[in-house]
Amino acid sequence: MTIEIGFLLFNGMTQLDFAGPFEVLSRVPGARVHLVADSLDPITADTHLRLLPTVTYDDCPALNVVCVPGGPHVESVYENAAAIDFLRRQAAQADYVTSVCTGSLILGVAGLLDGYKATSHWTSLPLLAHFGAVPTKGRVVTDRNRITGGGVTAGIDFGLTVAAALVGETAAKMIQLGLEYDPAPPFNSGHPDVADKEITDAVLAAMQDRLDTRFKRAAEFA
Amino acid sequence: MTIEIGFLLFNGMTQLDFAGPFEVLSRVPGARVHLVADSLDPITADTHLRLLPTVTYDDCPALNVVCVPGGPHVESVYENAAAIDFLRRQAAQADYVTSVCTGSLILGVAGLLDGYKATSHWTSLPLLAHFGAVPTKGRVVTDRNRITGGGVTAGIDFGLTVAAALVGETAAKMIQLGLEYDPAPPFNSGHPDVADKEITDAVLAAMQDRLDTRFKRAAEFA
Repeated sequence: MTIEIGFLLFNGMTQLDFAGPFEVLSRVPGARVHLVADSLDPITADTHLRLLPTVTYDDCPALNVVCVPGGPHVESVYENAAAIDFLRRQAAQADYVTSVCTGSLILGVAGLLDGYKATSHWTSLPLLAHFGAVPTKGRVVTDRNRITGGGVTAGIDFGLTVAAALVGETAAKMIQLGLEYDPAPPFNSGHPDVADKEITDAVLAAMQDRLDTRFKRAAEFA
Repeated sequence: MTIEIGFLLFNGMTQLDFAGPFEVLSRVPGARVHLVADSLDPITADTHLRLLPTVTYDDCPALNVVCVPGGPHVESVYENAAAIDFLRRQAAQADYVTSVCTGSLILGVAGLLDGYKATSHWTSLPLLAHFGAVPTKGRVVTDRNRITGGGVTAGIDFGLTVAAALVGETAAKMIQLGLEYDPAPPFNSGHPDVADKEITDAVLAAMQDRLDTRFKRAAEFA
């Protein structure tokens, strides 16, 4: 039986939010992965990488797993009625409704996290409360059939968690070994809980304008 | 001053070999990242993802960093005289000559690892000896200006190592925090040193035909 997995793509997304779980889930036995967008025109990520969708919202089959990546421009999706409608329609029948990074804010805007524990990129985690979700710190947070991943690289841990839910731990462990996922970061600076305060402050300062906009927009949904 | 960074793209590459270090290095202050291929037509990864190159071999500027990802079809690049010539030409003047995963086999075929310690995907590490390299187990292996990463996901650790070499540890740690790279794999199965033997055997069995071809082709260069 085919497992239909769909990722929402949009301009300004962070490509690694998508690329990590995409690589993992493409290796799930029986999976067919769809890259879903407004049209089949190239999508431009925040890093200017251009990649090609495989299907439009209307032509996408019923999905077993729907996944929404994030990025600096998630707000552009809030008003995209076709994208939000696509997510609601798929979520109503999907086995798993999922996100990586600030993709959870998009799920929130679509009303799909109301009453659910969920996570997001560390800079944006509190915002989930505006959408009725319960902000929950964690690399991967599962609440019933909602599975949300933390920031960017958490998408690999997320992908392996979803793979295990779909086809079991043995298959997920084989994928992990194939991807040689035995991480050894050269620095210990991947979360504010462990990073030097100066580093955290510098990252927040560099993102301040973007975060101001993000907080203001999320508050409009409260 | 602009730091020019170029990734070789080719059909059948593993997209995450590229996507991890691409995401990291795109965030290096002053970096301009080029995706280099035979033409500007879409490249199709082994997972069928299609992405768009930004420049051809001839139009690519002199690079400070040249990086070669790997994938199940690295052998197709061995006979691609234009690609091999591009790598030799850039390597002659680049600050860093690098690879992720089985991209090191391509560097080997181009004669760029002769006498250098280097790593590769765990399934293919011994093959580097056929190209005069010294196979060296490691997530990231640095020998003079050659920096090679292990399999697929090692590209993130590799990217942060290269970022620190280019612009210093503080900037690299900021990138790590922005990418929330504080990995927490749900299983401990990312390398044969830690995976269950049954998992390793199953992965090797599934790859046997491809590995037979890869070993045979590498032996022709000895």
